[in-house]
Amino acid sequence: MFTACELGVFDLLESEGFLTFDVIAERLGTSSQGMEQLLDICVTLKLLKMEMKREKALYQNTELSTLYLTKTGTKSQYNMLLYMSKTTYSCWNHLTEAIREGKNQYLRTFGIPSDDLFEAIYRSEEELVKFMHGLHEIWSINGRDVITAFDLSPFPLIYDLGGCSGALAKECITIYPECQVTIFEKEEVVQVARKHFPFLEEPRISFHIGDFFRDPIPKADLYILARILHDWADNKCVQLLTNIHQACKPGCGVLVVETLLAEDKRGPLTSQLYSMNMLVQAEGKERTPTEYRKIFTQAGFQDFQFKKTGKIYDAILARK
Amino acid sequence: MFTACELGVFDLLESEGFLTFDVIAERLGTSSQGMEQLLDICVTLKLLKMEMKREKALYQNTELSTLYLTKTGTKSQYNMLLYMSKTTYSCWNHLTEAIREGKNQYLRTFGIPSDDLFEAIYRSEEELVKFMHGLHEIWSINGRDVITAFDLSPFPLIYDLGGCSGALAKECITIYPECQVTIFEKEEVVQVARKHFPFLEEPRISFHIGDFFRDPIPKADLYILARILHDWADNKCVQLLTNIHQACKPGCGVLVVETLLAEDKRGPLTSQLYSMNMLVQAEGKERTPTEYRKIFTQAGFQDFQFKKTGKIYDAILARK
Repeated sequence: MFTACELGVFDLLESEGFLTFDVIAERLGTSSQGMEQLLDICVTLKLLKMEMKREKALYQNTELSTLYLTKTGTKSQYNMLLYMSKTTYSCWNHLTEAIREGKNQYLRTFGIPSDDLFEAIYRSEEELVKFMHGLHEIWSINGRDVITAFDLSPFPLIYDLGGCSGALAKECITIYPECQVTIFEKEEVVQVARKHFPFLEEPRISFHIGDFFRDPIPKADLYILARILHDWADNKCVQLLTNIHQACKPGCGVLVVETLLAEDKRGPLTSQLYSMNMLVQAEGKERTPTEYRKIFTQAGFQDFQFKKTGKIYDAILARK
Repeated sequence: MFTACELGVFDLLESEGFLTFDVIAERLGTSSQGMEQLLDICVTLKLLKMEMKREKALYQNTELSTLYLTKTGTKSQYNMLLYMSKTTYSCWNHLTEAIREGKNQYLRTFGIPSDDLFEAIYRSEEELVKFMHGLHEIWSINGRDVITAFDLSPFPLIYDLGGCSGALAKECITIYPECQVTIFEKEEVVQVARKHFPFLEEPRISFHIGDFFRDPIPKADLYILARILHDWADNKCVQLLTNIHQACKPGCGVLVVETLLAEDKRGPLTSQLYSMNMLVQAEGKERTPTEYRKIFTQAGFQDFQFKKTGKIYDAILARK
């Protein structure tokens, strides 16, 4: 699936369906033997359909690949798949070393030190753009569920810490027309967001440039932390949540969006694998509700609600 | 599964079961956070069992891991799993380039040229030993089915071309007590086989040192080619089969052991993926019965029987 995305198979078949393997190979500049094998595996995996016409096999996209695997699909995950193919798969080649050392594998995989984690993740503008597009794609299919998991209408002034290209901000203003969302991000992210995500010309969404570990946290009714805490060890999470708690008025809250592990940590498998991925690619882990309760409590929060969405990402609302 | 094998989790739990994650981490020299995650994923994947005792999780092997994943298991696949983890997974990181170029990826993956394919595969004695143990393990669970797929008792004098460490030779003499098997292998392979596989002190099994693409093929009643043809392009297969055909008396035969693709090449998925792996790691592919018929016919054979075993490897018997 990764390779067919990378080579542009789904995009070519979206603009011109019913092609033979040798035409596809020629158009995409690949070997024809390799392309035929790839296409036939995609058919078996139901990522492509094939029909015989005059003894020739003609390939076309399935509904699933049109939606999710083409660049232009309404639910496209193209950039996230490229990211997983080029970055995640490569880092997982060093899973054994990650478990031995208890740390991420950017140095071994890409020769890049990861003392500053996001300097490694954003190691070039190309990487940063791909990563941001990937996150945008994730929220385009998971955002609505997490933003509607709780009624957020009592929180008109929202800060989305690490809100990236504004995919969740956009969901917020769509679902809660009264709200204003400020995306708190590093300068390099804001620059790329402004350049590559022009829909952000929207008066209810603005940017605040800063580093939320070092700079003061502005006052707001709600702070969103979506896929932030899972990057970090407990002590850094407590530090961030403490800073938020100090900025927070009583009644105001924090919406944490993460995949929740079962209390015994033995499921769901996807969450366990995501947690392992945080070891291989970050400095954190996925957590159980009890583990989140503990770090929230240490930061001063006392009132928590957990909501499983039934999809990958769940939601936690903590209030001061 | 690969990483738990590599770190020795299954071997430790085989000699001492019911250990906690921190004890396992300490004994195997790993981080405890990473080990706990790995163990819990193995529980979810049913590779380990866990039970609670005095509020501590104690881990032990399942029957499957005892049999297949420990070094000492009676059906151990330990070396093959290590090979797949260290070599196959790494080469597949370059699947996109393999399909683009239509060639294997040793140069990109390990910096090793592959003009002579088996010089790349046997790039160090350590690699050669691991590869030979891995093949030995495969035949320890698949060998009987392919050797009993046809009645080979009419063929008392057998040459196993590329017979490696003699796993199939051993099956042959067990099932057909009248037969003599000669393993035709390169010198380096024979040396490692004699050093690491001492059971070969068996009068009905002997070695013949040579390169079966270059050196004369001796006379025999049956030639076994197990996982050989899939390494090579059609022209090299026809060349080898032609040489065999010339050495062969009428009535004598060739037993080919490979995984068979469906006639339309769209299944079984495992065979399709193995075929793709031949692109990524060798110079060949898996084939359909019709494709085998074609190369056999070009080499002069006329009488073929195909037998699907219902497992990974199938058998073809061709006679002169």
